[in-house]
Amino acid sequence: MEANQATSKGSRTVVLVLRLLTFVFLLTSLIILATNTATVETTDGDAKIKFQDVIAFRYMIATIVIGFAYNLLQTTISIYSIVTGNRLLSGDAGYLFDFYGDKVVSYLLATGAAAGLGVAKELHPFFKDILELPLNKFFAMAYASGSLLLLGFITTAISSVFSSYALPKKVQN
Amino acid sequence: MEANQATSKGSRTVVLVLRLLTFVFLLTSLIILATNTATVETTDGDAKIKFQDVIAFRYMIATIVIGFAYNLLQTTISIYSIVTGNRLLSGDAGYLFDFYGDKVVSYLLATGAAAGLGVAKELHPFFKDILELPLNKFFAMAYASGSLLLLGFITTAISSVFSSYALPKKVQN
Repeated sequence: MEANQATSKGSRTVVLVLRLLTFVFLLTSLIILATNTATVETTDGDAKIKFQDVIAFRYMIATIVIGFAYNLLQTTISIYSIVTGNRLLSGDAGYLFDFYGDKVVSYLLATGAAAGLGVAKELHPFFKDILELPLNKFFAMAYASGSLLLLGFITTAISSVFSSYALPKKVQN
Repeated sequence: MEANQATSKGSRTVVLVLRLLTFVFLLTSLIILATNTATVETTDGDAKIKFQDVIAFRYMIATIVIGFAYNLLQTTISIYSIVTGNRLLSGDAGYLFDFYGDKVVSYLLATGAAAGLGVAKELHPFFKDILELPLNKFFAMAYASGSLLLLGFITTAISSVFSSYALPKKVQN
């Protein structure tokens, strides 16, 4: 039983570190994408390109914000639980919240990263070769943001393995 | 214990149905995407557009093939297990294979669907409005294939919930 509690405390610390990493990845990804702009010269004068102009980048922002809010909540709960030694959500609720939360949020982040990186990869040569608007910096920033989102997905997916392994504690009660 | 075995048999049947559904979704998605072509008139004569011309669609095909192979293997194992009453992979191996397999494959399918649908959504107006090549049928087929892949992801994600709940059987041994 004591060994079990030690493992449980150890894995809770690992999960907390994973959540803090996710936090940093998502925040950096959000800042890079939200501040990403480019100016192109058109026949009607200069036009400004922002992330809002690409639907996939708007979807990315939405997944990052949901992932960020979820992680903020989970980190608060984890720190509370480590400091006080009690779980904030008592009984099954905590384990189920972790399990379904990590699962759903990790899928969301995976789709956000895939859509963002896929679209950047496809649109860049279009702008560069066909429209002759290289926009290299704009797309480099989009790749950077997408890659950080991908890292945030990976850390959440690992958390999700831990929260799945924690399910027996619920199922056996 | 008997109630447990009944639940276990019931959930194995549900998972088998989910896998058969995934099978159908992925096969249909694969056929639609792989046979999707369009012909466009260019100044150099007619050019044929295939799924291979879009990187995201190639990635979609890769995720569908992996998901399909995994489901074929899992369905075979499930049918064997239901018919003979024995699990093909004995002990922990079976539960861990289900758990990690469902997890990894569902993430792959999620990213395939997101990249494919995201890129189709972004490229379609580009071809239509800027290059004046509507390619409506080509993109409608890509959306159809991506939507079926999304359904295949959802059924795999539900399987993944079952295989996570089955983990205690391993952890407690």
